Amino acid sequence: MRLNKKEWFTEAFENQTAFSVRYSKKLHASQSQFQQIEVFQTTAMGRVLSLDGCFMVTEKDSFVYHEMITHPTMAMVSGAESVLVIGGGDGGTITELVKYPSLKSITLCEIDAEVVSTCREFFPEISRGLTDPRVRVVCSDGAAYVKQFTAEFDVILIDSTDPVGPGKALYELEFYQSVKRALKEGGAATFQTESPIMMSEVFGSTVRNLRLVFGDEMAQPYLCVIPSYPGAMWSFTICSVDKKDFSSPSCCLSLDYIEGLQYYGSDVQKAAFVLPQFVRRLIA
Amino acid sequence: MRLNKKEWFTEAFENQTAFSVRYSKKLHASQSQFQQIEVFQTTAMGRVLSLDGCFMVTEKDSFVYHEMITHPTMAMVSGAESVLVIGGGDGGTITELVKYPSLKSITLCEIDAEVVSTCREFFPEISRGLTDPRVRVVCSDGAAYVKQFTAEFDVILIDSTDPVGPGKALYELEFYQSVKRALKEGGAATFQTESPIMMSEVFGSTVRNLRLVFGDEMAQPYLCVIPSYPGAMWSFTICSVDKKDFSSPSCCLSLDYIEGLQYYGSDVQKAAFVLPQFVRRLIA
Repeated sequence: MRLNKKEWFTEAFENQTAFSVRYSKKLHASQSQFQQIEVFQTTAMGRVLSLDGCFMVTEKDSFVYHEMITHPTMAMVSGAESVLVIGGGDGGTITELVKYPSLKSITLCEIDAEVVSTCREFFPEISRGLTDPRVRVVCSDGAAYVKQFTAEFDVILIDSTDPVGPGKALYELEFYQSVKRALKEGGAATFQTESPIMMSEVFGSTVRNLRLVFGDEMAQPYLCVIPSYPGAMWSFTICSVDKKDFSSPSCCLSLDYIEGLQYYGSDVQKAAFVLPQFVRRLIA
Repeated sequence: MRLNKKEWFTEAFENQTAFSVRYSKKLHASQSQFQQIEVFQTTAMGRVLSLDGCFMVTEKDSFVYHEMITHPTMAMVSGAESVLVIGGGDGGTITELVKYPSLKSITLCEIDAEVVSTCREFFPEISRGLTDPRVRVVCSDGAAYVKQFTAEFDVILIDSTDPVGPGKALYELEFYQSVKRALKEGGAATFQTESPIMMSEVFGSTVRNLRLVFGDEMAQPYLCVIPSYPGAMWSFTICSVDKKDFSSPSCCLSLDYIEGLQYYGSDVQKAAFVLPQFVRRLIA
């Protein structure tokens, strides 16, 4: 069958596979200093945000991304007070973070102010954490921003786009070293590390590079499922300067008091670190 | 962007989302007594089999389906000798089953002989188990076929298509009762139960119906990721007449001697039963 361009938003991945969603209305289209920003109203996925033609946020499945970048990391760091999010201009990760009473300072460093304002307007539920008084939004290049800090943050979350365009600098060794330096003792950083099934080379090389910087046992990938992203099997990699057994239940704080979880649980965290055989081989 | 119909095979799900793959050549197209059968050569997914316009088998990701319907069930049933596969005309599940020396009798009941012959021709690696001398292929209606047996099989695998067209009868209570009756004491049956994220109602009602027949604790869903299927988060439900703790490591045989596993491991099995919160709520 052929999809009518006027009714469908399509993201083609390497011009070989494509995921499409039918929309009833295009709510927004603009070209920022950095990228093309569009918002669609759809039946299947709710509202959809695309950046440069790629799915970034959907009301249907973004809870998986935001919960799974945030809670495994917070469960590792007892009493975290300061957190930096790099990227993540949609505010969804911030909305998960503001659920933690221990946090005193929450900084979002997003390069593109227009992503933040678009998401405030069209995704009020996902971005609602941005109004929390502990949150400071810095519109700046994350790679340059993090360089100025030493032992400043308990938690750093790299909520990045793909390694092209504005997200490219967030996949370089120098950036990983800056993030490590900016972490306090006992802290942890989690990086979005792409799909092990559709972007197996980027996944493998990113994890290997993180292990070069943090040490082999100090950087562990874990998985979740995000249907609107290419391959749907999605990875994050959690990195630490002084913790090892990320998947052990004893290492994790109980997050039972966290409200409104749709994906995460401490057993889900543990299971997420169990990698299918082909994924293990990509990082062996 | 618009995808050129001549180069892309597209499966639209409920006319609201679509997954497409670009092909270099259409290798086969026929209309059997039951359905439209097509085979495409693609770069991203290898060869692709579609039935009535839906992705069924791809060389890229079908190992997930075939390993995850087969090995968790076989790990539960010590020394299984007889197995029945209903559906599964591509032969991929059979190819996993023939790895077990304990099996003496392996029956494939596929309604559409043309699916079997097409897969023998175009998917020789996936279907190679069909040549094993223990395998018998019956081209018949699986729901009618299984009715004639009582306490006949140690393992039954329901490798079905969606609950439309030829697959519809495989989602009815009467069929579940027939499968239960056909199981030997200590046996287990595993049903393909669709995507909890894109087909949440079918998933929920199928699991509830299986629990009506087998008992609440005797039917447990588990998950894996199949990118070419709608939603990619895919479920199977394992059912038994006398086993309870499907995810306990002590309940599982070690399958370390099984060759060529790309997804399954005993830890992967255990993790697959840990359901994200929203999936638990669908079957609560």
